[in-house]
Amino acid sequence: MKMMGILRLLLSLTCILFSAVAANPPTCPANIDSGCADDVWKGEFFPGIPKIKYEGPSSKNPLAYKWYNADEEILGKKMKDWLRFSVAFWHTFRGTGGDPFGAPTKYWPWEDGTNSISMAKRRMSANFEFMEKLGVDRWCFHDRDIAPDGKTLAESNANLDEVVAFAKELQEGTGIRPLWGTAQLFMHPRYMHGAATSSEVGVYAYAAAQVKKAIEVTHYLGGENFVFWGGREGYQTLLNTDMKRELDHMARFFQAAVEYKKKIGFNGTLLIEPKPQEPTKHQYDWDAATSLSFLQKYGLAGEFKLNIECNHATLSGHSCHHELETARINGALGNIDANTGDPQIGWDTDQFLTDIGEATLVMLSVVRNGGIAPGGFNFDAKLRRESTDVEDIFLAHISGMDTMARGLRNVAKLMEDGSLSELIRKRYASFDTEFGAEIEAGKVDFETLEKKAMEWGEPAVASGKQELAEMIFRSAL
Amino acid sequence: MKMMGILRLLLSLTCILFSAVAANPPTCPANIDSGCADDVWKGEFFPGIPKIKYEGPSSKNPLAYKWYNADEEILGKKMKDWLRFSVAFWHTFRGTGGDPFGAPTKYWPWEDGTNSISMAKRRMSANFEFMEKLGVDRWCFHDRDIAPDGKTLAESNANLDEVVAFAKELQEGTGIRPLWGTAQLFMHPRYMHGAATSSEVGVYAYAAAQVKKAIEVTHYLGGENFVFWGGREGYQTLLNTDMKRELDHMARFFQAAVEYKKKIGFNGTLLIEPKPQEPTKHQYDWDAATSLSFLQKYGLAGEFKLNIECNHATLSGHSCHHELETARINGALGNIDANTGDPQIGWDTDQFLTDIGEATLVMLSVVRNGGIAPGGFNFDAKLRRESTDVEDIFLAHISGMDTMARGLRNVAKLMEDGSLSELIRKRYASFDTEFGAEIEAGKVDFETLEKKAMEWGEPAVASGKQELAEMIFRSAL
Amino acid sequence: MKMMGILRLLLSLTCILFSAVAANPPTCPANIDSGCADDVWKGEFFPGIPKIKYEGPSSKNPLAYKWYNADEEILGKKMKDWLRFSVAFWHTFRGTGGDPFGAPTKYWPWEDGTNSISMAKRRMSANFEFMEKLGVDRWCFHDRDIAPDGKTLAESNANLDEVVAFAKELQEGTGIRPLWGTAQLFMHPRYMHGAATSSEVGVYAYAAAQVKKAIEVTHYLGGENFVFWGGREGYQTLLNTDMKRELDHMARFFQAAVEYKKKIGFNGTLLIEPKPQEPTKHQYDWDAATSLSFLQKYGLAGEFKLNIECNHATLSGHSCHHELETARINGALGNIDANTGDPQIGWDTDQFLTDIGEATLVMLSVVRNGGIAPGGFNFDAKLRRESTDVEDIFLAHISGMDTMARGLRNVAKLMEDGSLSELIRKRYASFDTEFGAEIEAGKVDFETLEKKAMEWGEPAVASGKQELAEMIFRSAL
Amino acid sequence: MKMMGILRLLLSLTCILFSAVAANPPTCPANIDSGCADDVWKGEFFPGIPKIKYEGPSSKNPLAYKWYNADEEILGKKMKDWLRFSVAFWHTFRGTGGDPFGAPTKYWPWEDGTNSISMAKRRMSANFEFMEKLGVDRWCFHDRDIAPDGKTLAESNANLDEVVAFAKELQEGTGIRPLWGTAQLFMHPRYMHGAATSSEVGVYAYAAAQVKKAIEVTHYLGGENFVFWGGREGYQTLLNTDMKRELDHMARFFQAAVEYKKKIGFNGTLLIEPKPQEPTKHQYDWDAATSLSFLQKYGLAGEFKLNIECNHATLSGHSCHHELETARINGALGNIDANTGDPQIGWDTDQFLTDIGEATLVMLSVVRNGGIAPGGFNFDAKLRRESTDVEDIFLAHISGMDTMARGLRNVAKLMEDGSLSELIRKRYASFDTEFGAEIEAGKVDFETLEKKAMEWGEPAVASGKQELAEMIFRSAL
Repeated sequence: MKMMGILRLLLSLTCILFSAVAANPPTCPANIDSGCADDVWKGEFFPGIPKIKYEGPSSKNPLAYKWYNADEEILGKKMKDWLRFSVAFWHTFRGTGGDPFGAPTKYWPWEDGTNSISMAKRRMSANFEFMEKLGVDRWCFHDRDIAPDGKTLAESNANLDEVVAFAKELQEGTGIRPLWGTAQLFMHPRYMHGAATSSEVGVYAYAAAQVKKAIEVTHYLGGENFVFWGGREGYQTLLNTDMKRELDHMARFFQAAVEYKKKIGFNGTLLIEPKPQEPTKHQYDWDAATSLSFLQKYGLAGEFKLNIECNHATLSGHSCHHELETARINGALGNIDANTGDPQIGWDTDQFLTDIGEATLVMLSVVRNGGIAPGGFNFDAKLRRESTDVEDIFLAHISGMDTMARGLRNVAKLMEDGSLSELIRKRYASFDTEFGAEIEAGKVDFETLEKKAMEWGEPAVASGKQELAEMIFRSAL
Repeated sequence: MKMMGILRLLLSLTCILFSAVAANPPTCPANIDSGCADDVWKGEFFPGIPKIKYEGPSSKNPLAYKWYNADEEILGKKMKDWLRFSVAFWHTFRGTGGDPFGAPTKYWPWEDGTNSISMAKRRMSANFEFMEKLGVDRWCFHDRDIAPDGKTLAESNANLDEVVAFAKELQEGTGIRPLWGTAQLFMHPRYMHGAATSSEVGVYAYAAAQVKKAIEVTHYLGGENFVFWGGREGYQTLLNTDMKRELDHMARFFQAAVEYKKKIGFNGTLLIEPKPQEPTKHQYDWDAATSLSFLQKYGLAGEFKLNIECNHATLSGHSCHHELETARINGALGNIDANTGDPQIGWDTDQFLTDIGEATLVMLSVVRNGGIAPGGFNFDAKLRRESTDVEDIFLAHISGMDTMARGLRNVAKLMEDGSLSELIRKRYASFDTEFGAEIEAGKVDFETLEKKAMEWGEPAVASGKQELAEMIFRSAL
Repeated sequence: MKMMGILRLLLSLTCILFSAVAANPPTCPANIDSGCADDVWKGEFFPGIPKIKYEGPSSKNPLAYKWYNADEEILGKKMKDWLRFSVAFWHTFRGTGGDPFGAPTKYWPWEDGTNSISMAKRRMSANFEFMEKLGVDRWCFHDRDIAPDGKTLAESNANLDEVVAFAKELQEGTGIRPLWGTAQLFMHPRYMHGAATSSEVGVYAYAAAQVKKAIEVTHYLGGENFVFWGGREGYQTLLNTDMKRELDHMARFFQAAVEYKKKIGFNGTLLIEPKPQEPTKHQYDWDAATSLSFLQKYGLAGEFKLNIECNHATLSGHSCHHELETARINGALGNIDANTGDPQIGWDTDQFLTDIGEATLVMLSVVRNGGIAPGGFNFDAKLRRESTDVEDIFLAHISGMDTMARGLRNVAKLMEDGSLSELIRKRYASFDTEFGAEIEAGKVDFETLEKKAMEWGEPAVASGKQELAEMIFRSAL
Repeated sequence: MKMMGILRLLLSLTCILFSAVAANPPTCPANIDSGCADDVWKGEFFPGIPKIKYEGPSSKNPLAYKWYNADEEILGKKMKDWLRFSVAFWHTFRGTGGDPFGAPTKYWPWEDGTNSISMAKRRMSANFEFMEKLGVDRWCFHDRDIAPDGKTLAESNANLDEVVAFAKELQEGTGIRPLWGTAQLFMHPRYMHGAATSSEVGVYAYAAAQVKKAIEVTHYLGGENFVFWGGREGYQTLLNTDMKRELDHMARFFQAAVEYKKKIGFNGTLLIEPKPQEPTKHQYDWDAATSLSFLQKYGLAGEFKLNIECNHATLSGHSCHHELETARINGALGNIDANTGDPQIGWDTDQFLTDIGEATLVMLSVVRNGGIAPGGFNFDAKLRRESTDVEDIFLAHISGMDTMARGLRNVAKLMEDGSLSELIRKRYASFDTEFGAEIEAGKVDFETLEKKAMEWGEPAVASGKQELAEMIFRSAL
């Protein structure tokens, strides 16, 4: 039961929480003396938390890296150049701990309960302090995360401009840049039937205007990529849907985006982020293969790459490694949303990845790809609802970064050892022959193959050696 | 990506929607002239919608019943006595259309954007007009749906008393009563680690106080049952959880509830509502069998029945019919939350059931149970987020009621035909012998059975006739 | 536990069953007097079962059609021309009731426990009597179903030729033809690593020879399509797999098949049958979109269509209707394997479809497609293991055919009523404007769209009316 | 498509494979000179494979233990006493590599293609050589794995007696004993509707006779436990099933088993092995909680423990750790079937567990339980179908044993570190007060709790620290 009328209730509940409850906030480590109207935050956002340093695997300090050593060279590159971490602004600074059955649980000391521009700037400052303490150079954002919606599109754009200018100032001299930006086309009720695939032409136009602006500000901030996540591009029931027409509209929309990007000289990569469902019953960008099928059909394949998210992979019935490899062998591995789901849960839990085997497989794809730049690893992951200490934000990111770093170190071990790649090479050795090469060149017809089959008799078939492959793989962990 | 920081954002977004957007609300069929402060609603809540009547299967009128004919007798009872429908206050009057990725979409004309007591009363009036037009005599509620949270428990209780007194007035002379009440122990952040299973003793006490009060008001309103849905009674990770201790606490809590119910003379049935997960990773009342196991272990089996929800059944890997039969054969079928999920979706979609085959199976269990009273069919189901016409609230309930009614009519056909029950009877005929009866009485040991097996030789085994059973079943639809 | 060493055990168990147990076979309705060596079967295979006739919905006769009336005209075509049913030889005549944990359960009277050529012919005769009694004009087969494997490829081909010549004789004068043929490339251990995607070049050649022959015999018998189901084309673990190389090989294989088909003048449609997994962990033809993506990438899109199977659809996380619509709007709906899975089961149960709502959705796609010819509805479905009466084979097919027929009748009702298609038309009406048309023609850029969005202000968004659509749909059932 | 009539086909196919194909067997490392009739196997079964030794983590030798060091003491016990490994006879010596779509792939040199008693003894000898080389002291079996079915029950019993006597000889002086025995009540067609829950009284008797005998031989061989896996105790459809009657029968059957066990002085533990489904649509022993519910209802709780299998756990929607903890806190953790499934696959893959994190969680439950004796870790796991080298059998077991050993070592690290258990202790500290103790003693009623809640005001709620817990846990891996 009981998907509550929770959202409207929050209006009043939040008020109560910020007044009555604020007297004894469950998790608030500091008080907001100067009140909500003040956009100047005195001192640190994260007092007591130092710059996070590498202390090695034997360290017991939760606020230190045990595996991630940014400047250490692994497989010919610095760890930071393989890993290109990014903080997801929405989860880290707009996540509230609310869920479909529960009210917000986070009361970060810098929040005043408003969505004002001054609050937006204060959050942005916190974001920069956070990245600097963590030693991360990239961040990702939606337009509507970082600046409040206005009453009109023009007002929303103006709000965005103001906050973006502030972020640009903060960026100066830091080397910090957006890994990517994106337009939030799923939260506002106008998008309930989709954005590019809405049945309403007015919504299509509105979405185009919003994407146009979001590309502009990403470009302005020096972002390296721009992402499309079509959370509402799909259907709730086929009974009321013209799927073909909607897909045609989506293709037109993407074509216009490509043209506009080129027109303004934005050289960042455009990325589609597949997800099978949630919030819709069925999203059009179901998985990597579906997205590639769409891009090919509409002549867009050269213009887009994919942003693979591990939790989305498993929701679509694939392993994360499968989705990464599918993107990679199609030349479309553009970025990774580094998170994980729960294997027993059927929705997007967006957890920080802590599974070392999984991280090793992810890094295997990245190393085979020769790296992920200009993409990176965006922590599209959030604290559990019950994690309410400011410190927890750091712990989660440190844990996620260390896990990926450990994965990279394991891949290096596997590469040095060499026995896993040798096992694969040997499996396909029969195609490394003259006849095999002719087949691979498309020169051998069925008659020739039949003649060979008759001549050869029953073919020998070697063991697949899966258990050995697993043993070698696990030995590197 | 992008489980947004949606909930806090709503504070500001809702304000915008109710000011700027309200000038052109997407779905609002009428204006709120008199303003938010006024708790007197002039005229009907649902103007233009008549009392819904039975017009028979050939009617094309969406606002009429085609199958539900309240006073028609089927299998010896009036349809309304088999079906005992109930409106779920939370979905119908507090549902906003928000989801984890989206803001509210519903702007019912009677809502003013507040959670005041006057607003609470206005909603309650709408609820009664709705039930009367629909011809439904029962409703279900959480304490916090119907009355606003206060700054203290005492204030919350006072708010509840005021609204409940108002509801009691509205009930007068109508025959309308609560099917059940319940306490909302999952939305407030204090319950983030559970209520009866919270790691904090203060929360345990708070939850007890809230349940105490909720039982009292259910009793006062003439409710026939009281439900426990343990949405937060479970865990997010076993790594930080003492499962045994938490289950022990839950048992103590239930024992205290039983004692209190008896003390105040409330004769309603206590019901546990199983659900496998969501919002937690793993809820303690996973499914019917798990709940029965818990009740037996702690000596509570005689004091509780189960409230089976179809969508929860399928989330736990069972068919709804399985869960109903499990409850029934254990003497624990207490109530049905009449909804359905989507077979391809891994979370609670709480849709109105429109599958006729499914409804027939549900009614088969109910008829075999001799009815469901004092339980009933609570429509724990909600409009899709994109359904934003006031009319849609009626269409959804009519559709759900007609589906259940059609299921009941189909069961009557199956019963009259008799061939399905005869097929079952014949399958087990070999146990309707003297020796079979002795086995069933527990009188036959392994030595005797071995002797028989030797004597009989290879046993004959008849066809299971599943395809014939399916053919008979489908013929009745 | 306990996936048994069942298969080898069967060698001895089957012997026992056909000797000792045969004295009292659980289900055998007649005796095999003339012994296993005799390939002449006296009299009928299905004595006592008449030609199945249409008796209308009120009939209680299990051996009659209640909804399928072959020559009745619906929506401008005879039912048999819409439905083009086909019997799947493998399930119906080679299915044994074995499962991973259980031995065979079927002892059809015409089987002698051998896999001789004479037995193969006897089975083929039974197939034709079955089709004639059922009134079905099409059948589907794998090469290895209908004729025994030989010691060499040449011997296997000779066996196949002999049985195929016999089938051709039986076809004469009947109008019966194969809906499609296919090569069985998954059962023999040589295919354990795949056929076209095997790591062994010898297996690739062997598979090519087998497909070559299977296309030839399908052509010879007048088959209208040829199917590829890549049961072993996939991987068990990516740790030992070069996915790119395997996919390249598969493309070369398909290109060679296209060339050969054309060379011999076979005009039948080539069909790929998507399935996500089972027997492999991950099959390359995961679903419709993945298959289309592959075909497009390798320039094969014009040469292949898809054979959609409902049970495979749901295993891949989609509704059957989704997969059909995906194929349809891509011009690739070639054939339907008419079956269903169990929504709570994670493997291919291949059940006869008896869900009327589901069948109506399937027929909706087919009618929108203007029919399915030269494809049809192949009953890739099997009796439950426990259904062991000869009669059950008929009951299952009658039930499946009646269900599809009922679906077709319901679609006719929906079309006549017209309100569902009208609901869809209205939803997209804003694109049926001059500006909408320009967008759809790809003529509108982001700047123009932004200007419109500014001009129009907040767009109106109508209710999605899902509940109304469901009500209309269910009313037709 | 295409769940083939594979099983019957195997009769002929197997013949071909053992004649024609045997000339070039895909995987056969040695020839069977002396022919199938000879039950004397000269020399070693596993020539070239030495006794497996511990060489430590740095070893690259696939045929050595890197983590399992049998006599090393960890947490106060020898590793072999914590781990109590057992070989599953069925997978290891009767597994053929067949699957629902594929024929056998394994041609172990000692197999002659028969199921004779001499073959049964040869296999048993291989089993003992295998255990000795591996250094494992326990084995598990079904009655029908180790000895062939006869034409009558008496003949089957005689076959079993002969093989069991041979096994007893082999055991002598070795210290090797069965961890458990069980009766195979799922493969023969007589059990297609169930054994204890069959609709046929003759089958019920036959099953009783078989269990009686299987308990006797387990007792004779010195087995420490006896397992019930009810693979056919469940239903395929509720439409033809009287679930209550079937469950009543199952309870009677178990009661008779308990009585018989006591009568003959067998002190081994009786174990139920939960599995949700497969081969049936729904098994009665769905999961741990369902099994406990059944045992409690029928007064059997004290007489049975549970055999938890990780792959069954995940198929039922739970983590393996959840099922283990559920069993443990109910005093019912009796044995572990040490395997794993694939998180994306919906059937029982019975893979060797190689996930180190998972193994650590499993060992955490075992250590908390004070060990698992008289139960153990049975490798209910099988080689992949494509793994066809004799060597692979060893690699798989070594990998599985090393993984569990590594899990145990990790638990030791966690225990020494202590911070994870401290984190849990602190979470519940508010119940370690006087008032908490009274609640836990069941002495506090709702009125008292309400008074406290009023007095205390809004309760403080601490962070759940999940990310910290995960960080600590992963640091130990």
